[in-house]
Amino acid sequence: MSFRFEIDRVADQVQERLSALLGQDEPVPGPGADAMAPLAEAMRYAALGGGKRLRPFLLIQAARLFDVPEGTALEAACALECIHCYSLVHDDLPAMDDDALRRGRPTVHIAFDEATAILAGDSLLTIAFEIISAPKCHDDPAVRAELAYLLAKASGWQGMALGQALDLAAERQPFSPEETTAMQMLKTGALFRFACEAGAVLGRAQPASRDALICYATAFGQAFQLADDLLDAEGDAAAMGKAASKDAERGKATLVGLLGLEGAKAHLAGLVAEAEEALAPFGGKAAMLIDAARFVAERRS
Amino acid sequence: MSFRFEIDRVADQVQERLSALLGQDEPVPGPGADAMAPLAEAMRYAALGGGKRLRPFLLIQAARLFDVPEGTALEAACALECIHCYSLVHDDLPAMDDDALRRGRPTVHIAFDEATAILAGDSLLTIAFEIISAPKCHDDPAVRAELAYLLAKASGWQGMALGQALDLAAERQPFSPEETTAMQMLKTGALFRFACEAGAVLGRAQPASRDALICYATAFGQAFQLADDLLDAEGDAAAMGKAASKDAERGKATLVGLLGLEGAKAHLAGLVAEAEEALAPFGGKAAMLIDAARFVAERRS
Repeated sequence: MSFRFEIDRVADQVQERLSALLGQDEPVPGPGADAMAPLAEAMRYAALGGGKRLRPFLLIQAARLFDVPEGTALEAACALECIHCYSLVHDDLPAMDDDALRRGRPTVHIAFDEATAILAGDSLLTIAFEIISAPKCHDDPAVRAELAYLLAKASGWQGMALGQALDLAAERQPFSPEETTAMQMLKTGALFRFACEAGAVLGRAQPASRDALICYATAFGQAFQLADDLLDAEGDAAAMGKAASKDAERGKATLVGLLGLEGAKAHLAGLVAEAEEALAPFGGKAAMLIDAARFVAERRS
Repeated sequence: MSFRFEIDRVADQVQERLSALLGQDEPVPGPGADAMAPLAEAMRYAALGGGKRLRPFLLIQAARLFDVPEGTALEAACALECIHCYSLVHDDLPAMDDDALRRGRPTVHIAFDEATAILAGDSLLTIAFEIISAPKCHDDPAVRAELAYLLAKASGWQGMALGQALDLAAERQPFSPEETTAMQMLKTGALFRFACEAGAVLGRAQPASRDALICYATAFGQAFQLADDLLDAEGDAAAMGKAASKDAERGKATLVGLLGLEGAKAHLAGLVAEAEEALAPFGGKAAMLIDAARFVAERRS
């Protein structure tokens, strides 16, 4: 089974399940029914607008190492994707990154309005915890409670949200490459780590297996970000579907600036090797996760 | 034990525990440590600025009906208060209600900035789920998972966040008194219901007891809102610490407008009686919850 085929197949599963989760209930009957539409519509617009669904893919593949059925892992994967989508909606807001385009489409506050975008982000954040703590997510409530706890840790004030706050701070004060890396590990790395750790939790993995997945996720997250910085430095606006070189404009020091293009590419190859090595204990079973690390390092958008 | 004494005592407990939850971890050492401060500070500013802590009080008193120790109920109570505080921070934003004052102090986006207010709200929302799913919240993970699920339901796109979306819609289109009531039951009622239901879940209550508490919470929520509308109609800006009669200005039809001041007061008394009646099965044990319903009906701010 090829990686390309598999990531597209998982993305379809995520799309279908998210669509059901965000639309299965009828609008509130009677008073206010019409007024309900914009919030739910904005949530669907934000969550069903495509994307590679990389985080759900990692979660499902990590869970598969422990023979967790895909239908089980899909619930936690959708919860994680809701967190990712909420973060994009809020990051795009005028008071934050002020972006009008995302994946070639108007951002939520442009397509709807700012208040709806704030509430849609809040609601996607909230529904993530509804999905992950619901009985359908896992038979064992201890697994559900642990997943909810880890997801909150990864996305909150000591995880992703802190990363975003640091990213905004970087526009006001110079950041060293080390500071930029620390910020990025929170802003984008925390959810990759959750994806892999959640697979281990769903599979009731031994601590050593869980730690191996965390090592993989750390290298994966750094590779993802470095590839992003390389794309940014090479400024391929068309392929990215968003304004390129924004980071450079804002004077945020990155590893690419420190190491140069060639040095950064060599470091990226090292990170991919690190990710592969972390998964050695799983043997051939981890092939799809290894392909995923290669994919993010080589991607052009 | 008097109600006044008890609600102040619980508020002190909530303040102390929230302060620990929002500040117990040292700032990230090394790079970015300074930049961490504004997010955590804004969260503390939003969550530790006082207030009656009515929702935590209800939760703790409801749990007490089933002999749940206060120290146990306090965790879920703090999680609920974080949700309430997040909703205030986001509701006050320029794109939402655009309020500059809250409890006589500058709102978070005025005291800090808009981006920090958005992230602090997001982070308070997220930490609520961290607190409620953490082992400290309850020994039984099934209780924690159920609480997380109910809290997400109460505060999300079919609960409080929908109520806020409807409230914003009411500014663009005329709302009937019935529509206004339906909106308010979501916007403010959903969290009161969660408070009471969570007490039953923590106490592993029988369905009949849980239903009785839900009936109480419904009447309580309606009484709370009607008292709020009465205060608004009577326009006592000084006592409220915020701009009065905003609802009336915005042309949102309320029960007060429909029933008149005297009619609304009679209806309010009926709701308090309904709340009391719902708790009859608990006898004298429910005295504090009955006092709480009387308190919200009679409050002047």
